[in-house]
Amino acid sequence: MAHIDFWYSIGSTYTYLTVPRIEEAARVAGVGLRWRPFNVRTVMVEQNNIPFMNKPVKAAYMWRDIGRRAERYGLTPHLPAPYPLAGLELANRVAVLGEEEGWVAAYTRATYRRWFEEGQPAGEEPNLSESIAETGLDPARVIEEARSEATGAVLDAVTEEAMGLGVFGSPSFVVGAEVFWGDDRLDDALDWARGLGSGG
Amino acid sequence: MAHIDFWYSIGSTYTYLTVPRIEEAARVAGVGLRWRPFNVRTVMVEQNNIPFMNKPVKAAYMWRDIGRRAERYGLTPHLPAPYPLAGLELANRVAVLGEEEGWVAAYTRATYRRWFEEGQPAGEEPNLSESIAETGLDPARVIEEARSEATGAVLDAVTEEAMGLGVFGSPSFVVGAEVFWGDDRLDDALDWARGLGSGG
Repeated sequence: MAHIDFWYSIGSTYTYLTVPRIEEAARVAGVGLRWRPFNVRTVMVEQNNIPFMNKPVKAAYMWRDIGRRAERYGLTPHLPAPYPLAGLELANRVAVLGEEEGWVAAYTRATYRRWFEEGQPAGEEPNLSESIAETGLDPARVIEEARSEATGAVLDAVTEEAMGLGVFGSPSFVVGAEVFWGDDRLDDALDWARGLGSGG
Repeated sequence: MAHIDFWYSIGSTYTYLTVPRIEEAARVAGVGLRWRPFNVRTVMVEQNNIPFMNKPVKAAYMWRDIGRRAERYGLTPHLPAPYPLAGLELANRVAVLGEEEGWVAAYTRATYRRWFEEGQPAGEEPNLSESIAETGLDPARVIEEARSEATGAVLDAVTEEAMGLGVFGSPSFVVGAEVFWGDDRLDDALDWARGLGSGG
């Protein structure tokens, strides 16, 4: 079956546009989907690629652009959402744990909704515990495991894996050796996975 | 009539994707179009927004992304094209002269084709004179006027105008107070101009 890997970091603003709609988009396209959380901040610092800090005009544009796109998708964010996230690393440690245990998509959707629609930063309380609880898990157990060295090592390892694939931003969609970056490339990635390639 | 302003700099790589197709796209949408060349390098330096320099992973992605998109549009570039352009300012001085004299679109298409399809940097010879000649003008006259202080002042003034509108990158599409940035936002901008707004 055709397949894409969805590489993302909780903490990326544009990823808000992808998270609520990617499952359905992949299903309609008949393409398998794997959620691959990683630490985009590590990559951006390492690659000297800081998108919005000290760029007020570009940052203002980003919020307006996300607002317009959200409306096209029928989403109802409160913008601007809190940004950047102090809890980015912890939010994504929980996500990689969820990837191992099979609940990453539900947790990611829950924490993004609280972040963008209720103004609660992801990776911090109350968003953190409430999103884990909404996913049907025990927040105390999950947060303790997320804070462990072992989970930190997993996040570091998958972040290295992402960099090895050429991923440098979130959201990215990887189909074989092809990287597609940006929410607005999701359809291109799904076409590529279905073998329609660039002529699709 | 609904209307968009196409703000761009010769020197922007992604603008290659827009230049050959925007006239037809606007015509099909029934939207008026004005070509507005400016100096994006001035804006980027002033706003600390340098997209690809010292970012090899992102730069490699950019060329691949342009290649895939070009194929979707039926374009046949030789990639990577020479980049960045030493002659960026002169290329855009010629363009603002063309805006005043009514031949900006033809010159921009000609110089982009030579740059991306024949590997000749825009704003330098032979691209400069050949593109002006292809547009039906005398290269010596046009280049002399482009090099004049008066034309430099026009380019500076329109670049200030672009910044005042919130334009920070190329290509950008401005519809009233709305800025859309990126070749992949052309359809959104045309929808906005037609009054379909974000629900289009």
